[in-house]
Amino acid sequence: MKPYVLGIDIGGTNTVFGIVDARGNVIASSSIKTQKHNKFEDYLDELHTEASRLIDANDAQGKIQGIGIGAPNANYYDGTISNAVNLPWPSLPLAQLVSEKFGIPVAVTNDANAAALGEMTYGAARGMKDFIMITLGTGVGSGIVINGQVVYGHDGLAGELGHIIVKRNNGRLCGCGRTGCLETYCSATGVARTAREFLEARNEPSALRNMPVEDITSKDVYDAAINGDNLAKDIFNFTGTILGEAMADMTVFSSPEAFIIFGGLAKSGDLLLRPLKEAMDRNMLSMFKGKPKVILSELKEADAAVLGASALGWEAK
Amino acid sequence: MKPYVLGIDIGGTNTVFGIVDARGNVIASSSIKTQKHNKFEDYLDELHTEASRLIDANDAQGKIQGIGIGAPNANYYDGTISNAVNLPWPSLPLAQLVSEKFGIPVAVTNDANAAALGEMTYGAARGMKDFIMITLGTGVGSGIVINGQVVYGHDGLAGELGHIIVKRNNGRLCGCGRTGCLETYCSATGVARTAREFLEARNEPSALRNMPVEDITSKDVYDAAINGDNLAKDIFNFTGTILGEAMADMTVFSSPEAFIIFGGLAKSGDLLLRPLKEAMDRNMLSMFKGKPKVILSELKEADAAVLGASALGWEAK
Repeated sequence: MKPYVLGIDIGGTNTVFGIVDARGNVIASSSIKTQKHNKFEDYLDELHTEASRLIDANDAQGKIQGIGIGAPNANYYDGTISNAVNLPWPSLPLAQLVSEKFGIPVAVTNDANAAALGEMTYGAARGMKDFIMITLGTGVGSGIVINGQVVYGHDGLAGELGHIIVKRNNGRLCGCGRTGCLETYCSATGVARTAREFLEARNEPSALRNMPVEDITSKDVYDAAINGDNLAKDIFNFTGTILGEAMADMTVFSSPEAFIIFGGLAKSGDLLLRPLKEAMDRNMLSMFKGKPKVILSELKEADAAVLGASALGWEAK
Repeated sequence: MKPYVLGIDIGGTNTVFGIVDARGNVIASSSIKTQKHNKFEDYLDELHTEASRLIDANDAQGKIQGIGIGAPNANYYDGTISNAVNLPWPSLPLAQLVSEKFGIPVAVTNDANAAALGEMTYGAARGMKDFIMITLGTGVGSGIVINGQVVYGHDGLAGELGHIIVKRNNGRLCGCGRTGCLETYCSATGVARTAREFLEARNEPSALRNMPVEDITSKDVYDAAINGDNLAKDIFNFTGTILGEAMADMTVFSSPEAFIIFGGLAKSGDLLLRPLKEAMDRNMLSMFKGKPKVILSELKEADAAVLGASALGWEAK
């Protein structure tokens, strides 16, 4: 009998889940809307119904060894989520409730840690024991692996590198309530904020001036930069430089073999990576110079969240 | 037969070594001058002669199970030291040479990692699996423990938190060649530099004005502050604030149970710790607020370096 795991990625908008085999093949996947139900019980009912349908359709009844869940603010140690601002039910004992419903062991962690596990199990970090996963999405997430283990810390919540302070004074306001966090500059939202700042502070022409400033997204900045727009290219230089400086600081902590970059902004390629690598090298302590690699994720973005969560499913007991 | 280890701490000035039992009792210790010999062979001859004398005098022949060495820039993985600016022999295969000379297994690591091991084995971090040791001496060193293991990273050199950049622009020049490193502000030398800056930038009276500005040490600042000198107290506020801000950033990385503060400056007590804890709390990401403890080292400073190095001796093979 071929064993499977069920990977579940609970995002603010969608909950994606899939059946995954031991080689990292996503046998089948589906999704439901996370926000449809105010009561967690109703959400869990729908998730269980839809996942069971997927399991039946793929002849996987009785073959699911474990369930892995990636969710915001999920705690690996106690299986809870707490104060998850993007979810309708900010705090609850997630692992316990899902395990009782499915009758299958469940392990949970936050989405970026799940991505790191996925990368180590199936992706660019196979064979690596020391690496840092940086996820560039609406925010900046991270999953840190040291000695082949995800770093959960004393309370199960370690690895929040998006909230390193990169600008101590007059930094941008962050969703966390503080100012100057890395994610206010280097997330997709951060790129859009930089665009608005640069457009206001400068006079040079830019294709970005042709759209309402509040509507500009990181994708618009990317499109403009690819077409040679200098202001748009400068926005990526600014973003990559800040991220590279921060990564040089992260290196003195754990001396990783590689940084794996994942998420929408990673698709900007050299627009982001060239200034990033230059800043990282320029700011690197000499003993680490030239050592940490910077690698783009090898996971297909559509599958990545489910794969990452599923990798945790093998650990569930 | 009671087994012992030999702990050796190689500092820029002195090399201290001692025989330690399994309970962390320093049975006997002695020292030689590190800088006396330009050739490492001569230094090693003297170290071997003096250590053998100590071993014989304490009836410990044949009972030394391993030798642990703490030394600047020492690499746990390959046993080498490299580019150690404070030593007369900047690069060599230290573990191999000492092991051949003594006929005993040797393990090496840098001095701050050794201190963390000592604290975990014999000191304030007994029973802790996740903590960060911060050593405040001429520089700022660190030893990071995650999941009960010292973090060595991919290359064996991880844990250089003294070289996190705390001031990105116009920061102080660091011995590493870069500017703005934590250790340019929060080491004993950093405190003396702050004193010189504050005395020049301000007009208020201070007992520190009674001595030649280039001769002021962190001890002088401490003595003045204890006697109520406001400028001296401000120097500690400034120092503690920068260290507390940096420790809040370190927390998002590994979520430690505690920070253990060690070294000369740690003896300043609340002069340093009060502003440090306030800044750490003020800058802490809410999910970690109030969690990491700040604890002073429990190791006697005279014994600490030898104890830390000796803790590594039990791992040598």
